[in-house]
Amino acid sequence: MVQFVGVDNVVRLIHSVGMERFLLGLADYIENDFRRWNEFEKEPRVASHSRDGVIELMPASDGRLYGFKYVNGHPKNTRDGLQTVTAFGVLSDVGTGYPTFFSEMTIMTALRTAATSALAAKYLARDDASTMAIIGLGAQSEFQALAFKTLLGIDKLRVYDIDPAATAKFVRNMSPWGFEIVEADSTAEAVLGADIITTVTADKLNATILSDNMVGNGVHINAVGGDCPGKTELQRDILLRADVYVEFTEQTRIEGEIQQMPKGFPVTELWQVITGDANGRISHEQITVFDSVGFAIEDFSTLRYLRDSVQHTDFYTELDLLADPVDPRDLYGVLSTTIEDPRVLRRA
Amino acid sequence: MVQFVGVDNVVRLIHSVGMERFLLGLADYIENDFRRWNEFEKEPRVASHSRDGVIELMPASDGRLYGFKYVNGHPKNTRDGLQTVTAFGVLSDVGTGYPTFFSEMTIMTALRTAATSALAAKYLARDDASTMAIIGLGAQSEFQALAFKTLLGIDKLRVYDIDPAATAKFVRNMSPWGFEIVEADSTAEAVLGADIITTVTADKLNATILSDNMVGNGVHINAVGGDCPGKTELQRDILLRADVYVEFTEQTRIEGEIQQMPKGFPVTELWQVITGDANGRISHEQITVFDSVGFAIEDFSTLRYLRDSVQHTDFYTELDLLADPVDPRDLYGVLSTTIEDPRVLRRA
Repeated sequence: MVQFVGVDNVVRLIHSVGMERFLLGLADYIENDFRRWNEFEKEPRVASHSRDGVIELMPASDGRLYGFKYVNGHPKNTRDGLQTVTAFGVLSDVGTGYPTFFSEMTIMTALRTAATSALAAKYLARDDASTMAIIGLGAQSEFQALAFKTLLGIDKLRVYDIDPAATAKFVRNMSPWGFEIVEADSTAEAVLGADIITTVTADKLNATILSDNMVGNGVHINAVGGDCPGKTELQRDILLRADVYVEFTEQTRIEGEIQQMPKGFPVTELWQVITGDANGRISHEQITVFDSVGFAIEDFSTLRYLRDSVQHTDFYTELDLLADPVDPRDLYGVLSTTIEDPRVLRRA
Repeated sequence: MVQFVGVDNVVRLIHSVGMERFLLGLADYIENDFRRWNEFEKEPRVASHSRDGVIELMPASDGRLYGFKYVNGHPKNTRDGLQTVTAFGVLSDVGTGYPTFFSEMTIMTALRTAATSALAAKYLARDDASTMAIIGLGAQSEFQALAFKTLLGIDKLRVYDIDPAATAKFVRNMSPWGFEIVEADSTAEAVLGADIITTVTADKLNATILSDNMVGNGVHINAVGGDCPGKTELQRDILLRADVYVEFTEQTRIEGEIQQMPKGFPVTELWQVITGDANGRISHEQITVFDSVGFAIEDFSTLRYLRDSVQHTDFYTELDLLADPVDPRDLYGVLSTTIEDPRVLRRA
């Protein structure tokens, strides 16, 4: 049998563990997998593009465990009341090829994106950072706020969205968490005095959400919204002034902010900072950019974390996904008799 | 909600429809999709190789519907009492990117492989074919026998496996179906007088299951077992004497019998025969080979067929795989309140 964690059970699990403890655990799993980066087989994601969006399969393997995530990106969905991004994921045993774990990954992707951002900022933002600007208050924004509060103690937010309804939703959702929130009237106002700037807008185009003159020295920019070809948020001059950190260079050159830059533009991979192979922030004045696009290893860590979290709980169900006859050459036998016959079909 | 068809429900569905009607319907769906071959986006499968096997993701899309299959191939599994091949599949809506259907594909892959073989033979074997040899009596063999009986009326079988227990299993499973079965003592004896030869052995190596001297004029060879790099069953001299038909040339040159031949070796794609763009069999003496490796469009057809077959039945269940808040920007709202709140989480 294959373990299945659906939306209800993810919500129940997070309520049971507590959001902050859950995010800390998730960030730990991601950090540990980034630390053993070279153990992973890193494959490009497989994308199927259509008029309105893209469907991608993102595999990763550490040689013992194989994982993949299915994820779509359909910007126009919002106009029809649907999610831009939905996802699910699977883990399997590399030795046998048998899938063992299957789960929703829409909520989990939002959490892992935020946890990875906060993890990067732990190494790249100034130690004394206390204020974060968030530009774009869509589905990802609350998760970013909570991850930065949990991992870095950020408790002052300056927020802006072109849609006041999105701002109202954000403030309502975050009100129980003890943030000091300033609702700005523009991006320029929101970033004033912020130590960290998170850009997480949704439009699928090359936009200038953040222009060079808005960015002062010492700031860490967490650039989350520019995550596919033709979708960027930062004016390229910012990238020229900054030290840029990425997940997986090959992928980020296609999907990230640095798609605006020539191929040789220097970047550092986050795992190198985590292992100490490369520098993170080295001065108070330096501008750092985490050019986040989301990488398969983060999903692998997330699936592993979710699987480990639900063991010995009732937060999963079982699916009869695998026809596994007692005699492996007798697959037909599964069909020829009643499946309750214990001689024919194995029950784990 | 996403519809889910597990092993129990696939078995119940086939019992309810009847194996022969089920195979005919499945072959119909495959034939119809092969007929509109050029509507499909054809992507290479994404393979993750490890010491003991391979895990593959096989996507296909016709621009409206997207499907993919997860499938592993672990030859050593049999020694541990496990299936060599397990699989599951997913269908999604290209317009929204939302997955809609999820199912077991281990049994369904066995059925689609057999249905595709019989479909090819309908165009490539002699009209008067009545006897088929089957070499290799593992998990796929019974499905091949039943598909050829259903689609072509083949009712005489000459069978051989190096393991007498496999032969006994095959004969036991097929005894209710009214075949005349000859249990041969060798491959050479099995193929004597056969109009069609199906090779479906399991070893992962370049073997000579069928040598040139065993193959007489007019025979159709259904070469199923040679389906990955380093795994072939036919002596190459046979391919030089035969007209060779494949599913998708680019993939078969890597995985099929023709991996033994130079790149320019001429082949015909099966869909061209089905649409009438290319010849199938044109003479009684011709030797034809269907060099089958399994292609993603067959799985797409199979998923579509299974989905259509379970509508308005109780042969599926529903999974809460998708977090789909009423306000798409309020994904966090799914977590912040109880999920029973109808304002927060949509229930399809």
